[in-house]
Amino acid sequence: MSETQRSGCPINLTLEALGDRWSLIVIRDLMFGNRRHFRELLNNSEEGIASNILADRLKRLTEGGFITRADDPSHKQKAIYSLTEKAIQLVPLLAAMGAWGRRHLPATRTLSVRAEILEEGGPALWADFMAELREAHLGIPRPGTGPKASDQMRDAYLAALAEED
Amino acid sequence: MSETQRSGCPINLTLEALGDRWSLIVIRDLMFGNRRHFRELLNNSEEGIASNILADRLKRLTEGGFITRADDPSHKQKAIYSLTEKAIQLVPLLAAMGAWGRRHLPATRTLSVRAEILEEGGPALWADFMAELREAHLGIPRPGTGPKASDQMRDAYLAALAEED
Repeated sequence: MSETQRSGCPINLTLEALGDRWSLIVIRDLMFGNRRHFRELLNNSEEGIASNILADRLKRLTEGGFITRADDPSHKQKAIYSLTEKAIQLVPLLAAMGAWGRRHLPATRTLSVRAEILEEGGPALWADFMAELREAHLGIPRPGTGPKASDQMRDAYLAALAEED
Repeated sequence: MSETQRSGCPINLTLEALGDRWSLIVIRDLMFGNRRHFRELLNNSEEGIASNILADRLKRLTEGGFITRADDPSHKQKAIYSLTEKAIQLVPLLAAMGAWGRRHLPATRTLSVRAEILEEGGPALWADFMAELREAHLGIPRPGTGPKASDQMRDAYLAALAEED
């Protein structure tokens, strides 16, 4: 998304494309929170993203080929955002980020259990979750009928929430 | 390294700690380029980091517990920087970043071969590389005497450089 690339190193290019923290936060919420509308992304934001920043990042992520925007067939006046294949392939990177963060930073238990499941499930679980995302965002049917990675993450999250009360 | 944390989500915390692109670039150069002195980090920078930005990021990374600074025993007037355990454990995250970037962004061949080796080697190679880094940066002897992950990466990088000519 940057105009000029400082080097052709793949780590540098990834940081240039996604290096501002809000872009990955928005992708995280589309990916793990299944928030597909502007209002959901805004109102449910754990980090309290400002509406002008959210609007700007959605625009930049669309221009960068990470998300697409379409009219929601069920609410004509609303736009629905979908992850592209390029963004879906960020699952291993977000899993690595969650695994490192929950170990080295003061992460809360409730918001860490999904990262823990992703870490323990490893590449096989990431592949399942990516197949689910392809179904939900790209309309590509998920192969197999086994338990969903997202159900596992949701159940663990709800259990942690219940423990918190 | 941020003063206030926007949420306890481990992905958010990781982005808050490392979300500015230059911090991870400096860690990358300490990690994969074995650049331990200010001048090396400055003069060999593929991205042309400015000296004031480098100085600021070295300070912030030190404060954040990612690197330590000591007098170099072989050059009394020079400081030598070392990665901490916390930073060494970023290897899988940087590997995921390199793997995604070389696939989805216009990375150059020469600067991608090390990312390719890390991706193909997977968690076993990352563990070997982390053991090497612990030896070089923390003085913890590397177990075993097998071939070094860094030699594999260096050989591939030099071969790609030679092909470029």
